[in-house]
Parts: sequence; structure tokens; C-alpha cells
Amino acid sequence: MNFQQEMKARKKMVESALDIMLPGSEVEPVSIHQAMRYAVLNGGKRLRPILVMEGARLGGKDMEKVLPLACAVELIHCFSLVHDDLPAMDDDDLRRGKPTCHKVFGEAMAILAGDALLVRAFELSANMLQDSSLPTENVLWAWNELATATGSRGMIAGQVIDLESENKSVDGDTLRVMHQKKTGALIKAALKSGAIVSGADEEQLQALEEFAGHFGLAFQITDDILDVEGDERITGKKSGSDAAGNKATYVSVFGLSRANQMAEECIEQAIRSLDIFGEEGWFLKELARSVLGRRS
Amino acid sequence: MNFQQEMKARKKMVESALDIMLPGSEVEPVSIHQAMRYAVLNGGKRLRPILVMEGARLGGKDMEKVLPLACAVELIHCFSLVHDDLPAMDDDDLRRGKPTCHKVFGEAMAILAGDALLVRAFELSANMLQDSSLPTENVLWAWNELATATGSRGMIAGQVIDLESENKSVDGDTLRVMHQKKTGALIKAALKSGAIVSGADEEQLQALEEFAGHFGLAFQITDDILDVEGDERITGKKSGSDAAGNKATYVSVFGLSRANQMAEECIEQAIRSLDIFGEEGWFLKELARSVLGRRS
Repeated sequence: MNFQQEMKARKKMVESALDIMLPGSEVEPVSIHQAMRYAVLNGGKRLRPILVMEGARLGGKDMEKVLPLACAVELIHCFSLVHDDLPAMDDDDLRRGKPTCHKVFGEAMAILAGDALLVRAFELSANMLQDSSLPTENVLWAWNELATATGSRGMIAGQVIDLESENKSVDGDTLRVMHQKKTGALIKAALKSGAIVSGADEEQLQALEEFAGHFGLAFQITDDILDVEGDERITGKKSGSDAAGNKATYVSVFGLSRANQMAEECIEQAIRSLDIFGEEGWFLKELARSVLGRRS
Repeated sequence: MNFQQEMKARKKMVESALDIMLPGSEVEPVSIHQAMRYAVLNGGKRLRPILVMEGARLGGKDMEKVLPLACAVELIHCFSLVHDDLPAMDDDDLRRGKPTCHKVFGEAMAILAGDALLVRAFELSANMLQDSSLPTENVLWAWNELATATGSRGMIAGQVIDLESENKSVDGDTLRVMHQKKTGALIKAALKSGAIVSGADEEQLQALEEFAGHFGLAFQITDDILDVEGDERITGKKSGSDAAGNKATYVSVFGLSRANQMAEECIEQAIRSLDIFGEEGWFLKELARSVLGRRS
């Protein structure tokens, strides 16, 4: 099984599903639906929905069954990016190589589009409850994981810590907690919710939680490394934007060499946590290695 | 049964529930939880949660059973106010007689607090599913009503229409549709969701839907009248702020006299739609009359 082919196939499934599950751009009011679609159908890597699908597969169900949940997670991710980019927040003009939502549609529309994406995400998660082949208590459990990971003690908490750390000297612990919540929580919830919904057992969930923790951290460290080193044409954002914004990063706190080392250590730990899956762990192992491969 | 006493008792139940169902102000990160509590525990009238409870009562269940749902609806309402007040949106410094959330906590925190309130609202609605005395399909149905009423074809659509109508001449139809979505949809969903969850039948739901439509409209018309005529110390916002902001209102489109007449006609229609409830319709009838009573 070829990892690249598998990624491509899953990404295709997600793109089709997202296209269907978002209101069409002709639906009134047209502007907000265009803004929502712009914020989502933009060439994203779809890491999180792919993790939802993998969680489902490892738990023993068809990946297609969890597409509404996978799309919900991606909508939550996209909502957070739209709001994060706003002038009052990170004030970014560019994302994934294109103008940010508020640059195209205006700030007010971007605020509302983000809000609407969040509502739609919860609608889609609830739709999972209509699938009678999935036990209600599992879907509810997965739903709760997702809501907790998104809210004021999860992703939003991470954004608050990030906000409050601006222009302050930040130590390694604060940085870690901030990223754990800001990006790690949703990544973890993605993988776990897919598995929970599919009836994965406690041992499997524990392993996936561990994997996601190390993986999420490596993902963030390599993001920081790419910001310093990366080619703007590939990363889609201005290099050095973290430094320009005076943001604490793994590179600024630990140095480039140690940051690289930490990323590699995380990936090793991530891979080790997949032992109980045996051969079936192949996809997540490849995914973990590909995170390191993003570095130049 | 005394309407004022009943309102007071219900409001008290809602206040206690909101206090419990929001994260405490000591929960980390402290700032966002303070902002969320500030945005909610602020002396609001709690109209929408009271409607949820009334819907439940008319459907034959204890009002206490629907408190999570009632609180969810209020959190959705409060989220929309926080975002609506933002500089990029209506840019309001004052709400309910106090500084708006972003004036106290900053714009970024207010954006995030609104987001977190929305997430918490959906968590609370989902919690209803854990009550085994309420049929799952009813709770799901109620949930869907709420999500639809909140999203890009409901309340958020209304905000978009409002945004796009700024500084344009707006006719009566556009005004009506804008308000139907911006404020009417959530009011309707509040009353209906309480009733749906309690197993109200189709005839009852139809009557409640009709009531809510007329009631919501009357509510908005009297809001517009109060803006022109009202005492700032009572309404909590600057008089004439609509006119200053060049906003189309029922008064600016129809004139004060006709607007008053329309509000009265709406309330008459609202009261008539409650016929099938007989004596039990007393509360909603009093509530409808109290809307007219807000006028000086």
C-alpha cells in the first residue's frame, strides 16, 4: 500500500464531502456562503479529517461512515483559521498562499463566516447520530471530545494563551501548553473521535491519544522550523513572519538545532506508541515520518 | 397565577442554571471565562430560555428538564450580541447599560469569548441527549431546529442582510426578512425546541410557530419604537442610535404611528394563534401583551 496514493484517495473523499456538506455558493445570502466556501475549499491538506478516517479504520469501521464527522473537524479547523487571521487577532493577509478571508470579504463577513462554519460543524456532527449503525453513546462521546477540544479549555484556551503571551518572554512549558491546546487538542480529538465512533477499545484509544500527542507536537515544531527556513512558495506564508511578529516559537526558545532534534524525538515516540496496532499502524507511521519530511 | 411572579421565578431558575453551566471565573485561562461570564451574567431579560421552558411546559414536561437547552439558547443569543457589538460589526460601546465585552476585555478576547459561548451552547444541547426520559429523536430534532435557526440560513443570515443593507434604502419586505432571520428565527427555535423535546404534537407546534412569528415581529417593532422614544436609563442604550447609525427600522420605513399599529396587530395575531391551548395559553398571552407594555 502506497502512502501517497492513500493520502490522495482520502483527500479526494474529503474534498467531495466538504463540497456537498457546505451550502452552495448560490444559496442566499450568497456572500456568506461564498465566504464559507472560500475559507474551506482552498487546497488545505485535510490532515484532521484524514485522522478522523484513520481512527475509524483502526476501530474497524468503513471510513466513509465518518465523513460527516471528518468534515465537521475540518470546518472547526477552518473556522479557527478565519478568526485567527482577523486584524484584531494575528492580522494575517495571507494563508495557504492566498488572501485571507477578511481581505477578500471584509472583516464583518469573515467574523460571521467563521461563526457559521462552527455552527455547520456541529450540525454535521449531530447528523452522525442519525446513522443507526453507530451506537448513540459512542457518537455522543465522540461529540463531547470534539466540543471539549474546541472550546474554552481546548483550542480556544490555546488561542487565549497565545494572545496573552505576545511580547512577553515565554518559557518552554508555556509554549508547550499553548500548542497542546491551540493545535494539539483538535488533532487528538480528530483521531480519537473517529476511533470512538467506530467502537475502538480503551487500549486502542490510549495508544491513539499518545500518538496524537507526540505527533501534534512534532507538527507544531516543524511548522516553526519551516517558518524560519521554509520556501514561501511552498509554505504559503511569509517566511520569518513569526519573528517579525515577535512570537515565541520552538526555534526562538530552543534554537534551530535542538528544535529539529525535538521534532525527531517526538516522531520516534509517536511511532512507538502504535505498537499495539501491529501492521495496521503503517499509515500513521508514514504520516508521522512525512511531518519530518516537510522540512527542507 | 401572577405573570410577573412566574417570570421572576423562571428568570431565577435560568440565572442559577447559567451560573452553573458556565465555567467558573477561576478556571484557566481565567480571562476568557471572565469574558464569557461577563457576556452572559449581565442582567439579561432571559426571554429566550423562558420561551424554551414554556414550550416544554405546554408540551407536558417539567420545565427543569429543559434547563440545559434553555441555557444553550441564551448562550447562542449572548454569543451573537458579543460579535454584533464588535468594531467591525455594529461597533457598540454599550449594551444593557454596561460597556460591551470588547470594551472591557479587548477585541480579540471578545471574538474568542463569543466563539467559546457558541461551543458551550452546543455542548449543553448535546447534554440533553443524556437524559433518557427524553426520546433521542426529539432531542435531535430540537437540536437541528436550533442549529438551523442559528446558522448561515438563520440568525447569521439575518446579520448578513443587516450588514449588506447599511446605508442603502431598505423596503418593508427586506426589513421584515432581515428581522425574521436575525431575531425571529432564534425566538421561534427557542419556543419550538422546548416543545419538541417534550413531545408536543404537530398541531401544538404549528400554533407555537405561528405565535413566535408574530411575537418576534412585535418584539422587533417595539425595539425600534423604543430606540426613538425610549428612556436610555431603562433601555440601556443610547436613544436615537439607530438613526445616528443610518439604520433602516420599522419607524424609519413606516413612521412611528404605523409602527405602533403594526406592533399591536402582531400581538393580536399572536394571541389568537394560541387558541388551541385554551387556558394554558395564559402565559404566552401575558408575555405578548408585556411586549407592547415596554413602550412608553
